Amino acid sequence: MYKVEELTELVSLEINKLDFDKNPKELYEPIAYTMSQGGKRLRPILSLLACEMFGGDVQKALVPAISLEMFHNFTLIHDDIMDKAPIRRGVETVYKKWNQDIAILSGDTLFSLAYEKLLACDKEHLVDFIHLLNETAVGVCEGQQLDMNFELQDEVSIDEYIEMIRLKTAILIGACLKAGAIAANADKKYQGMIYEYGVYVGLAFQLMDDVLDVYADIEKFGKKPGGDIRENKKTYLYLKTLEVASKEDAELLRNYFRSTELEDDFKYDSVRAIFDKYNIKALTEEKMNSYYEKAMSILNQISYNHSEILRISKMIINRDH
Amino acid sequence: MYKVEELTELVSLEINKLDFDKNPKELYEPIAYTMSQGGKRLRPILSLLACEMFGGDVQKALVPAISLEMFHNFTLIHDDIMDKAPIRRGVETVYKKWNQDIAILSGDTLFSLAYEKLLACDKEHLVDFIHLLNETAVGVCEGQQLDMNFELQDEVSIDEYIEMIRLKTAILIGACLKAGAIAANADKKYQGMIYEYGVYVGLAFQLMDDVLDVYADIEKFGKKPGGDIRENKKTYLYLKTLEVASKEDAELLRNYFRSTELEDDFKYDSVRAIFDKYNIKALTEEKMNSYYEKAMSILNQISYNHSEILRISKMIINRDH
Repeated sequence: MYKVEELTELVSLEINKLDFDKNPKELYEPIAYTMSQGGKRLRPILSLLACEMFGGDVQKALVPAISLEMFHNFTLIHDDIMDKAPIRRGVETVYKKWNQDIAILSGDTLFSLAYEKLLACDKEHLVDFIHLLNETAVGVCEGQQLDMNFELQDEVSIDEYIEMIRLKTAILIGACLKAGAIAANADKKYQGMIYEYGVYVGLAFQLMDDVLDVYADIEKFGKKPGGDIRENKKTYLYLKTLEVASKEDAELLRNYFRSTELEDDFKYDSVRAIFDKYNIKALTEEKMNSYYEKAMSILNQISYNHSEILRISKMIINRDH
Repeated sequence: MYKVEELTELVSLEINKLDFDKNPKELYEPIAYTMSQGGKRLRPILSLLACEMFGGDVQKALVPAISLEMFHNFTLIHDDIMDKAPIRRGVETVYKKWNQDIAILSGDTLFSLAYEKLLACDKEHLVDFIHLLNETAVGVCEGQQLDMNFELQDEVSIDEYIEMIRLKTAILIGACLKAGAIAANADKKYQGMIYEYGVYVGLAFQLMDDVLDVYADIEKFGKKPGGDIRENKKTYLYLKTLEVASKEDAELLRNYFRSTELEDDFKYDSVRAIFDKYNIKALTEEKMNSYYEKAMSILNQISYNHSEILRISKMIINRDH
């Protein structure tokens, strides 16, 4: 049985084989730049692990795994335009390093190339893979739109927030796992279960992200925490505080998030103090654990050896950066 | 045999069936808005005509026809952001009516939906259709990138320009025709020929566009001519003038296109006067006719009844708006 580390290597090799040395270079250089940055390659590895768990040949899952990683990178290129994000993975975003038009267009191209990659799969799985990519893509766009809506919306409920992160982040984790199950010819029932498992892991993953953004150790995190607070992001921590805090503290928090003139460190310290007062970190971790438990109860119903899937899921959730 | 008018009706009915009444509405309303505008529906009609020409059932071509029309509309939504175009088809563009982020994201969604639409095709043709959409999408992006490059490039050759419009405009016409041929199970040889035919028609179509932008009758054109001149677009007319004009006139033309402060009407009149001096309209029409003849010579080698394809091709090229 392959270990996570070996599959990481396999994925890297496969991504290195992709040929983006084409013209016009203004279009392909940003694609090569983005795809070569790596990151944790979490998503394609999940595809391979799921395939292996269901007794499939990991080679058969490589095509959808890489295609979904290409899709994921396309979404990052476009998201960074919308978020006006200058830095990702420690380097300049495409939007910042080149320009917005190039980011739009190289993103569109990478999206097309993700579909073209899929055509190299076993033909028996093509319809399933294409449909999976389509519905994931549409869902991720819906999630991103909800996220943008929330910026302008005065009231966002916790349920709405969970639905947003489900679409924007979690369903892609589910889709990656399901792609591996499809490649392994797993039962439809198991395909559905591993997808649901992935969605719950994805929800826990995003809540961990929300926590880390406020509470991470700056050394390990690699950047100053508080980005979400600075940008007035209505994260789970913020929304949960509004739910449990006194009327006065809730109003205070709202005011911090309405203001655009507060000094960053002051705002971070003040917001964090309110979070601390209501134990919001623990409450968020509680919610995260409830999703993790839901994930585990699904995984335990799948009668295959899931030790590596479990290991990477724990790595995802118990990370400190 | 169906006539163009009947197929136009069939395409409209099919597009009206598409359901964009979904949430979040900020994402789907711009899609519904764009898809409902119509335009000439030229591309899907070409798919149906090609299918019928090769003896296929037009119903079988409807799926790729609508998918390619969805793809085309996606490219318009994104192009309008890059071109900062406020108006298309006489109404506000998505970018202008909503905003840029929504235009990026609803475009991405429509692109995914174009792929999802394709899955409704006969499974025997799925690989061919997906591959056709992929390579068309990548080509159109390359063409758009070249177009953007040309804005910053001092020297653009006529060959480079033709390659740009081939990618940006002509291959989609070819792809629409080829999709119809695939749906009709036409010979691979004929699939290739009708694609080439479409590319030549597409090149002629774009050159006609370049001519109309300067020489159209304002009443029929529906807008003031001279848009390309105002935006310093290096069209065929501009590039051909640089080739045939005296050194002095070429330099004068270059200067008009470098300036950003000239009054619109004065600039239009001055540039048009140079074009007229060198008979550029006639020279462009000559080039256009050479593509049209190439197209015809291919069509004449296809031993099927091509009367309706010919009729619509003539409508495309001999239009006055």
